[in-house]
Amino acid sequence: MYSFNNDYSEGAHPRILQALMETNLEQNNGYSLDRHTAHAAEQIRAEANCPAADVHILTGGTQTNSTVIAAALRPHQAVIAASTGHINVHETGAVEASGHKVLTRPTADGKLTPELIQEILDAHTDEHMVQPKMVYTSDSTEIGTLYTKSELEALSHCCHQNDLWLFLDGARLGAALTSPANDLTMADIAALTDVFYIGGTKNGALFGEALVIVNDALKADFRYLIKQRGAMLAKGWLLGIQFEELFRDRLFYDLAAHANRMAARLGDALTERGYEFAYPPQTNQLFPIFTDEMIRNLSKNFLFMPYQRIDEKHQSVRLVTSWATTDAGVEDFIRALDAEGIRR
Amino acid sequence: MYSFNNDYSEGAHPRILQALMETNLEQNNGYSLDRHTAHAAEQIRAEANCPAADVHILTGGTQTNSTVIAAALRPHQAVIAASTGHINVHETGAVEASGHKVLTRPTADGKLTPELIQEILDAHTDEHMVQPKMVYTSDSTEIGTLYTKSELEALSHCCHQNDLWLFLDGARLGAALTSPANDLTMADIAALTDVFYIGGTKNGALFGEALVIVNDALKADFRYLIKQRGAMLAKGWLLGIQFEELFRDRLFYDLAAHANRMAARLGDALTERGYEFAYPPQTNQLFPIFTDEMIRNLSKNFLFMPYQRIDEKHQSVRLVTSWATTDAGVEDFIRALDAEGIRR
Amino acid sequence: MYSFNNDYSEGAHPRILQALMETNLEQNNGYSLDRHTAHAAEQIRAEANCPAADVHILTGGTQTNSTVIAAALRPHQAVIAASTGHINVHETGAVEASGHKVLTRPTADGKLTPELIQEILDAHTDEHMVQPKMVYTSDSTEIGTLYTKSELEALSHCCHQNDLWLFLDGARLGAALTSPANDLTMADIAALTDVFYIGGTKNGALFGEALVIVNDALKADFRYLIKQRGAMLAKGWLLGIQFEELFRDRLFYDLAAHANRMAARLGDALTERGYEFAYPPQTNQLFPIFTDEMIRNLSKNFLFMPYQRIDEKHQSVRLVTSWATTDAGVEDFIRALDAEGIRR
Amino acid sequence: MYSFNNDYSEGAHPRILQALMETNLEQNNGYSLDRHTAHAAEQIRAEANCPAADVHILTGGTQTNSTVIAAALRPHQAVIAASTGHINVHETGAVEASGHKVLTRPTADGKLTPELIQEILDAHTDEHMVQPKMVYTSDSTEIGTLYTKSELEALSHCCHQNDLWLFLDGARLGAALTSPANDLTMADIAALTDVFYIGGTKNGALFGEALVIVNDALKADFRYLIKQRGAMLAKGWLLGIQFEELFRDRLFYDLAAHANRMAARLGDALTERGYEFAYPPQTNQLFPIFTDEMIRNLSKNFLFMPYQRIDEKHQSVRLVTSWATTDAGVEDFIRALDAEGIRR
Repeated sequence: MYSFNNDYSEGAHPRILQALMETNLEQNNGYSLDRHTAHAAEQIRAEANCPAADVHILTGGTQTNSTVIAAALRPHQAVIAASTGHINVHETGAVEASGHKVLTRPTADGKLTPELIQEILDAHTDEHMVQPKMVYTSDSTEIGTLYTKSELEALSHCCHQNDLWLFLDGARLGAALTSPANDLTMADIAALTDVFYIGGTKNGALFGEALVIVNDALKADFRYLIKQRGAMLAKGWLLGIQFEELFRDRLFYDLAAHANRMAARLGDALTERGYEFAYPPQTNQLFPIFTDEMIRNLSKNFLFMPYQRIDEKHQSVRLVTSWATTDAGVEDFIRALDAEGIRR
Repeated sequence: MYSFNNDYSEGAHPRILQALMETNLEQNNGYSLDRHTAHAAEQIRAEANCPAADVHILTGGTQTNSTVIAAALRPHQAVIAASTGHINVHETGAVEASGHKVLTRPTADGKLTPELIQEILDAHTDEHMVQPKMVYTSDSTEIGTLYTKSELEALSHCCHQNDLWLFLDGARLGAALTSPANDLTMADIAALTDVFYIGGTKNGALFGEALVIVNDALKADFRYLIKQRGAMLAKGWLLGIQFEELFRDRLFYDLAAHANRMAARLGDALTERGYEFAYPPQTNQLFPIFTDEMIRNLSKNFLFMPYQRIDEKHQSVRLVTSWATTDAGVEDFIRALDAEGIRR
Repeated sequence: MYSFNNDYSEGAHPRILQALMETNLEQNNGYSLDRHTAHAAEQIRAEANCPAADVHILTGGTQTNSTVIAAALRPHQAVIAASTGHINVHETGAVEASGHKVLTRPTADGKLTPELIQEILDAHTDEHMVQPKMVYTSDSTEIGTLYTKSELEALSHCCHQNDLWLFLDGARLGAALTSPANDLTMADIAALTDVFYIGGTKNGALFGEALVIVNDALKADFRYLIKQRGAMLAKGWLLGIQFEELFRDRLFYDLAAHANRMAARLGDALTERGYEFAYPPQTNQLFPIFTDEMIRNLSKNFLFMPYQRIDEKHQSVRLVTSWATTDAGVEDFIRALDAEGIRR
Repeated sequence: MYSFNNDYSEGAHPRILQALMETNLEQNNGYSLDRHTAHAAEQIRAEANCPAADVHILTGGTQTNSTVIAAALRPHQAVIAASTGHINVHETGAVEASGHKVLTRPTADGKLTPELIQEILDAHTDEHMVQPKMVYTSDSTEIGTLYTKSELEALSHCCHQNDLWLFLDGARLGAALTSPANDLTMADIAALTDVFYIGGTKNGALFGEALVIVNDALKADFRYLIKQRGAMLAKGWLLGIQFEELFRDRLFYDLAAHANRMAARLGDALTERGYEFAYPPQTNQLFPIFTDEMIRNLSKNFLFMPYQRIDEKHQSVRLVTSWATTDAGVEDFIRALDAEGIRR
């Protein structure tokens, strides 16, 4: 049984484990006030070309999203998201649990646009309604699509015009920045958003999301929020050491590029065999459309998630590759496709 | 300038004011632990034919909605509503402020159905998503429509099957129950819901919503919630006295019936003159469609709210009548319609 | 049975009821956007000599306290109060329900001092602890005592030095400002605090607390918070009309002065007869110490609250007078004291 | 520079790191739905002799505390703690951030008693006050003291009598259970509490607290709460693997016993030299009293925290040992004590 279930099915890249082993008996200050975290923050500021940014490394994505939003908004303020946005669907109401409404619009491709934001602004006009104050995006998105530079510039401009914070969830930022379809850099992201994060969990770390707060207005007392929300790891240097390693010799990009290459091999094989996709394959998440019978057959040897019913006989499924996906795994899957013959 | 802006533009029905005057210098226990409130509760239990219900009278609708929901739900649970539901749009995120997500579906007529509820249940399958646990409806709805008895029975059945509380916002319950199109009684409402309330603010009281908790599971410690949420009026007997009067000699129904009759006169006049409505006119809220020019003209002498743009030249507007609407006000409006001639 | 239970056992002063009657059939804009509320706000700004203040009138004290605190604080910030403070004891955790800790110190007389505040500041030094950001006081206090001008100046200075908001709960501000022991004016209160309110509920109104936001930093979007917290009354002009009347011809002060005079008569009678007080009698709340037997006897004809056990045989009780307390009520109580003979 | 600053200054015990290495490239289900976590839960249920308990492993203590409390309490309910309790002081108001008040009493030794609980119950009598519903204790406490079996039985009895949940924070449960002064077993803890947890972070794991929910009433939907609060680790098996190792061959107890032995060596050396302690030395936290000068001197070579000022010249300090504390570290410290000569 080989898993394409997600990009967090294995532990960490061996170099990261090695770094944790080597430093294991060091005595370090707790709560991320250690030298490894300080060094990782320096590396990230350099990579993002934002020397004044505050960097905090948290354990996971839901934690990071809800902490950023709780820290940024007053009680009557709301965050705008695509209806497929992770904060809207897959965080068990973590944003609402901190008191804030998520305002959503359906999208074709998981991406917000200035027009969608304007629609929401137009519908929220006075104190009987919540006040939109932040825009949440993700790159790559929950359905594997990418923002182009001009799209992100347009969003950024729209946010500035309307006094909205722009927050980019980069749980899969590695996959985005190393996609052949991408024209953004980490520095562009930092220049165009108020706050964003760089995902480690889905890109070769045991866990860890490096939050980069670019806008001064969002920096104050952030560590209080981290602590209050149970997101301050006692042995915080474990996070620092992992990001030190990810940003030494561009390991972060290499791992993501591997995931994308594995996905491209799968995607090409699917395309060659005439399969269609629910969303354009751009990063390490693919959403091919299979018959129910084929899903049953493939499920005997591969783990992956059904995503959405298309019609009576077809569903889209989600195949995810990662830094750890093996050539053998990909090749076995392609062979299994071939065994399906002309069934589709 | 005559106002059809809402049904809470005047003070209270004279009988209610009179009752407040007569009892003004009585010494009463505070916090709704007085004999008037106890008596009003008895009257309401009798009217609703639910002798075991708990009755609490709160000041306003948003307060009542968010207190009920906060009292009923655990942190991970959510409430289902029509996308036009008052709690979704017009309460500045009060439900989210207490930690709960509002799950919505668009509707044609402001009413939920078992099918819409099932859609939401189907989409919320595990602990990564909120857990739907309560259904919020309003009768009459925010757009003036009504639940029939069979519709409410279907909702009630669906809720029981799926272990969902059914909560009915009756801010305009009087208008619903006295509509010619209605086939529900107060006792039906009590039998089919877990908790509902009877609106006073929009039906002749200075303020006050009488909450009826039918289901034992929702009763425990409710006064703690009222107090915590700033909804416990020190001079609580003011609420009791108003509802005592509303449910003596059926004043509650008489006032609502008057509002509906005034709306019917306006509605008939509009229909006769060929105007169309965005939603079917059933209670004291009408949503006729006017040209922009006509809206400008009418606005010189009448207050009312634009509701939604229909096309380049037309908008629906909201006209609301109340217990206090005068014949003269209605007649002036009809005359003003006639003055518009054949413009539409 | 005559009640000295509290200062909110009767309805409203007849002039206030009269004003409500006279305006009853006026059509007014809802949600406090009416001319009466605007006029009352002008009167209050004039009385407090703070022409730039924002004035909002809310229904009750708990509602006002928790709305102010929720509007002012970020999630990790806390409010400092005397351990007897209303927000700490008698609001069912309303402040905590909005996410904020109340930091307390015991006091001898219900009043905070710079020294007590400093103790709390010294104990809260880093992000593992909440951040004190607001100081909550009440005048008169929950135990009937008063701040002198120099005491309030010292608090105000301490708050400015430490970047803390100073919030004064004036639910009984009338009783404070008309006490013979008082040397503060409404204008002093406005000059020395960031935000305060003027209680109507306990001083002759049906309900209503007029909040005065002096500091610009606390003004933004306050109406959103009022609405979200269920504190925006649909027929908001009812609040405006009551405060218009209270601040026409100094009715507000006259009513409070009456309450204080009635308390002074009771207090003098108690002192003459040798009774002791748990707290010095300064306003309309008295805390004499009685034997248990005497409490049983007096309770046959008078309502009042036991407050605290002093020793095996004695308790302090709370006697409260109001704008509505009658000479006859006071005289009956004094006669009842005499009937107790030399028992104490 | 050697650190006695806390018991989480180093990484993990080598056996734990080794287990993480060996399983690194396994593909596991995410979100703690893996076989390692299931196995660890079995081991813990066996050790605690509570086969029906639910076991969830979370990342850290603040997270665990606030998740348990948020899951257990309705909005108006409060948790009772010693004023030194971790939830009261060192979690940046995490409990209040989820809406609940922490009710506290000062204690001599960091431990609650039925008498202290009764005091709080007596002071919370009606709906104007929060409702105490849970008791929070820790063993060992924040000041290194222990509950005896009879003390915990008395607490447990008191909680049952008063319908209160008993929650035991076992962040340092290892140190408690291996103390020579201890007479409790893990099975006793499970029998006497409703919910407790077993700390890994402070006892040789990289991170991880194993929560054991004994009372059925607290089990429902707990994974929803974990997810909502950002406490569900994507690679949850990392937690499972660590606890599998801790409860294989009693490593958990061996590590804690080492920490206690190291503390006992320090404690004995201090006692022999005539030093006094602010709290009795029972586990791996010692609170000796030193002169300011001595603190300055020792701080040149050792890291430790000043705890509380005793008088003008003396402070208590906190010395903490751990599974990783070395003989050399302890011996160096004792030599440094000797170098201080007769100064104290």
